[in-house]
Amino acid sequence: MFQSFDSTSDPSQAEPRIERLRALIAETGIDALLVPHSDEYQSEYLPRSAERLAWLTGFTGSAGVALVLRERAVLFVDGRYTLQSREQTDPGLFEIDSLIENPPHEWLKTNGSKSMRLGFDPWLHTIEDIRTIRKAVEKAGVELVPLERNLIDAIWDDRPAPPAEPVRIHPLKFAGEPAEEKLKRLSGKLADDHIDHTVLTNAASLAWAFNIRGGDVAHTPLTLGFAVLSAGGKPKLFLDSRKLQGEAETYLRELADLHAPDELEPMLASLAKGRKIGLDHGLAAERLRLLVEESGGTVAEFADPTTLPRATKNETELKGARAAHLRDGAALARFLAWVDAQEPERLDEITVVKQLEEFRRRAGEEAQMPLRDISFDTISGAGPNGAIVHYRVTRKTNRRLASGELLLVDSGAQFEDGTTDVTRTVALGTPTGEMRSRFTLVLKGMMAISMLRFPPGTRGMDIDALARVNLWKAGLDYGHGTGHGVGSYLGVHEGPQRIAKTGKEKLLTGMILSNEPGYYRQGHYGIRIENLIVVSPPEPIPGGDIDMHGFETLTLVPIDRRLIDPALLSPEEREWLNAYHRRVFEEISPLVDGETVGWLEKATAPI
Amino acid sequence: MFQSFDSTSDPSQAEPRIERLRALIAETGIDALLVPHSDEYQSEYLPRSAERLAWLTGFTGSAGVALVLRERAVLFVDGRYTLQSREQTDPGLFEIDSLIENPPHEWLKTNGSKSMRLGFDPWLHTIEDIRTIRKAVEKAGVELVPLERNLIDAIWDDRPAPPAEPVRIHPLKFAGEPAEEKLKRLSGKLADDHIDHTVLTNAASLAWAFNIRGGDVAHTPLTLGFAVLSAGGKPKLFLDSRKLQGEAETYLRELADLHAPDELEPMLASLAKGRKIGLDHGLAAERLRLLVEESGGTVAEFADPTTLPRATKNETELKGARAAHLRDGAALARFLAWVDAQEPERLDEITVVKQLEEFRRRAGEEAQMPLRDISFDTISGAGPNGAIVHYRVTRKTNRRLASGELLLVDSGAQFEDGTTDVTRTVALGTPTGEMRSRFTLVLKGMMAISMLRFPPGTRGMDIDALARVNLWKAGLDYGHGTGHGVGSYLGVHEGPQRIAKTGKEKLLTGMILSNEPGYYRQGHYGIRIENLIVVSPPEPIPGGDIDMHGFETLTLVPIDRRLIDPALLSPEEREWLNAYHRRVFEEISPLVDGETVGWLEKATAPI
Repeated sequence: MFQSFDSTSDPSQAEPRIERLRALIAETGIDALLVPHSDEYQSEYLPRSAERLAWLTGFTGSAGVALVLRERAVLFVDGRYTLQSREQTDPGLFEIDSLIENPPHEWLKTNGSKSMRLGFDPWLHTIEDIRTIRKAVEKAGVELVPLERNLIDAIWDDRPAPPAEPVRIHPLKFAGEPAEEKLKRLSGKLADDHIDHTVLTNAASLAWAFNIRGGDVAHTPLTLGFAVLSAGGKPKLFLDSRKLQGEAETYLRELADLHAPDELEPMLASLAKGRKIGLDHGLAAERLRLLVEESGGTVAEFADPTTLPRATKNETELKGARAAHLRDGAALARFLAWVDAQEPERLDEITVVKQLEEFRRRAGEEAQMPLRDISFDTISGAGPNGAIVHYRVTRKTNRRLASGELLLVDSGAQFEDGTTDVTRTVALGTPTGEMRSRFTLVLKGMMAISMLRFPPGTRGMDIDALARVNLWKAGLDYGHGTGHGVGSYLGVHEGPQRIAKTGKEKLLTGMILSNEPGYYRQGHYGIRIENLIVVSPPEPIPGGDIDMHGFETLTLVPIDRRLIDPALLSPEEREWLNAYHRRVFEEISPLVDGETVGWLEKATAPI
Repeated sequence: MFQSFDSTSDPSQAEPRIERLRALIAETGIDALLVPHSDEYQSEYLPRSAERLAWLTGFTGSAGVALVLRERAVLFVDGRYTLQSREQTDPGLFEIDSLIENPPHEWLKTNGSKSMRLGFDPWLHTIEDIRTIRKAVEKAGVELVPLERNLIDAIWDDRPAPPAEPVRIHPLKFAGEPAEEKLKRLSGKLADDHIDHTVLTNAASLAWAFNIRGGDVAHTPLTLGFAVLSAGGKPKLFLDSRKLQGEAETYLRELADLHAPDELEPMLASLAKGRKIGLDHGLAAERLRLLVEESGGTVAEFADPTTLPRATKNETELKGARAAHLRDGAALARFLAWVDAQEPERLDEITVVKQLEEFRRRAGEEAQMPLRDISFDTISGAGPNGAIVHYRVTRKTNRRLASGELLLVDSGAQFEDGTTDVTRTVALGTPTGEMRSRFTLVLKGMMAISMLRFPPGTRGMDIDALARVNLWKAGLDYGHGTGHGVGSYLGVHEGPQRIAKTGKEKLLTGMILSNEPGYYRQGHYGIRIENLIVVSPPEPIPGGDIDMHGFETLTLVPIDRRLIDPALLSPEEREWLNAYHRRVFEEISPLVDGETVGWLEKATAPI
């Protein structure tokens, strides 16, 4: 099993830890400390050795920061985690505040005192973060103090060792472009922009640039490490040598000079002197900025040069994505057929997760393309749990399925040829009219994005509302973006592309995105329908003036017909839905057993 | 007539003027001069005395800037004016470049030389403009030199006197809130934000805050002047005393201390010392910033505090807007009936403009609410001229109407109770199938906005694409925003609200906006359909979770049924259109003569 169902958190452990931390804070000569959910690579998913916030507070969410003062401590989380953070932490120790409306730097404006010294580990905050915090708290007289050592690590006795999983070469047949060529292009980009050196700090950037994958964090095949790229000369790669075995070492030694991670700082210091070092202010650690400036170098704002080429998948990556989605579609068909064949009351959320992972594993084995991981912890939300957008089932919260309820399952796979992410909402027994009408409104939004044609230059923010207008008309909405970028056997969340109010990036040919509107009725049920889509090249439209992009749908999984109210569909929507289901049947039925084919035939019948 | 049809421009006048200017540039010790289309109030429409760019170059467009160097001169205009600027200027004197893609500060990055001294009149540029220019050109070694006097004025012998039209009181029955109360609220806002004083520089802000109107610029009832508002104490108003006659002077003297315009600088200098002066960096002249800082004051970034209250109309203003639109609808019905009754070949674009203004004047007289002005020069574009988005007919360009062509008329009125802005596209004779299908696609976009419900917090940029998706599907689009804000007997273009890719502002209850998608086939025809709409308060929707805003349509003018292809409409769209036309008939037919009622009945018959 790639997924575990433990509740890892124990609020009672925090007290002695906070006590020891406060002693150390006093000893260090600071008044307060920031403890973010972050590592030196600014990863979304952290290795256990970097779960400092969870270790200190008990809170295990994927975003948050604690501010520990001499007498108070505040945990800042976003709306997704308000409830969870209260359950996981000791209310006698931690106040909870909003990471969005009142983040630490805002909180300090009113609660900070003159000449307060606020310590932070400059490895765990980006340059931009620190600039924002500094700008806000300076007015209140608070001084930001970068610390030389991490104070949590100093008191975390049984801290796990940092991960050192082996690096694997990501073969050309999946990557589509040799690392030599990518690195040459990147080097040329630096030269064009008059940047002498840049540091790749993002593990996905490293993976893409060198065509490598690893196993240092859960659910994303990343190797944690750094690279220094230069306008002239060979790249330098800073990786734990235990990760480099045989073939991978030989391969990387041809591409780069190999160094141990602790050589990064002295190396960068010596490279930086009198040079212009490009750093991505939203990705690179403040520590790197300090180091470059202390060493007599100049820091230039320089967007991670791998971001856009990584986001716009090449033909090989797209071919891989299509193959991965066929395989995943077969697994999902078996899974949905299996759910339909059970009495709901005999199932619970965890059984559902286990069974789905098993079907994915089998689909991988049959195709000789093993399931490397799930792409994130499966969200299996029955009834009211479906309304918790980022629900993760544990043995404590595990809920029995029930007839008359909805089951929301959001899950994905990591195959070597592609990353998948799919949500389906299933009716158990007979759904209510309200469930059907709302499901249909969500579906209409999903289809509006799927059918869209749009001119070059369109940004994700320009089209987000298209998925919502039908819900808005009914007085409904959903509190998350419509879609996020997805990597190619990389992160299931990948920027910069997104379909959301904040999606400033233009949608470019080859970008893979999710398309996942939803509706959540608190305490009752959740609905989400998610396909992955890829931006297709601009193509002429007969009689038109402008070549228009469109979206190709990658995900091939039936949408529950029992939840669709055909009266609410336009002829065009009905046509799209029936064509989609026809395609699902044609492409998936050859891949599944006879029983599943029978189920699939019904599940994809025209409406 | 409020509109003139002269071509005011003569390219041959520029040569001696440029020659004299270059002499003065040399004498002043600078190498180059910026000549923007702007005045010290940063007005959109300039009084003749501030038309320096037109005087120097011959170019009469509403946006642009000239950069005059010793040996070269470049005129920067946006895409709307590329053609017009070439026709109006001497190509031997002026190169034309793009104000959007290569504005002066970008141009100077490549063409500026080290230690070049670039002069500018700090009254004619906002603080933000200068910051942008400085940031860009500093790297090229160019030095920005604010000049003490305007060099154009120094050589413009027959420069018209600045306007001094009388100030009129805008009565409470139209304004809805006494100026005393507005000024008290504004003063409170300054106090809350710890600002000692602010300068209102925008003429619309002045008009709104003091409930006054004037006649200093064409088509917008503005009085040019400044006000200083303070956290404590009476406002100070800086107005040419010739504008203040009888009642208006008594009225204003109660609200403010009255000063001559040339007292502003010494007064601000003495107020500023040791104080915090709030300036809107996007509206206030750089001169004011320099003055405050030279006088020992601190400049704080402070958004013009009248902007949002002015944009969100109160109930009285909305009542006025509805009345103005009824009156305007009656004028438009007569006008459209008249067009239909003529043989197209007997009309030309100018006749159309004159006749429309005449109908508006009559409608005003009948309602005893005289037409104060047109709200902008009517765009009357026949055939291919309709495809020129900002077309203004002159005797030179005037085109005869022709059967089989389209006529696009975009026009508006200034009544004391409200400002209107409406576009209708009319079929002359029998339209082609292409014209009809494209008109219908544009109409679908217009209706999508009209029918929209949306949650609080939605910005204009979130909904712009809703007006475009049907065009996109056909490979078509239009190159302008979907809607702009409209004032209340003020500017027909009023920020900050807009429905466009750049519309960052939230749509708030009471904001009036235009809703005007279009389609332009260069060299053939133009289509635009424009209604004004107002954001209605959030209201519950049966069965919904969230109270939703909507739009109330103000404009009441038939949409040409001959151009609508009913096969392209959804049932919902057809229903909206028929209900709209029913409303137009019910509300307008009592206001027009029998003949027009007959026409109206046919023009609003259900589809």
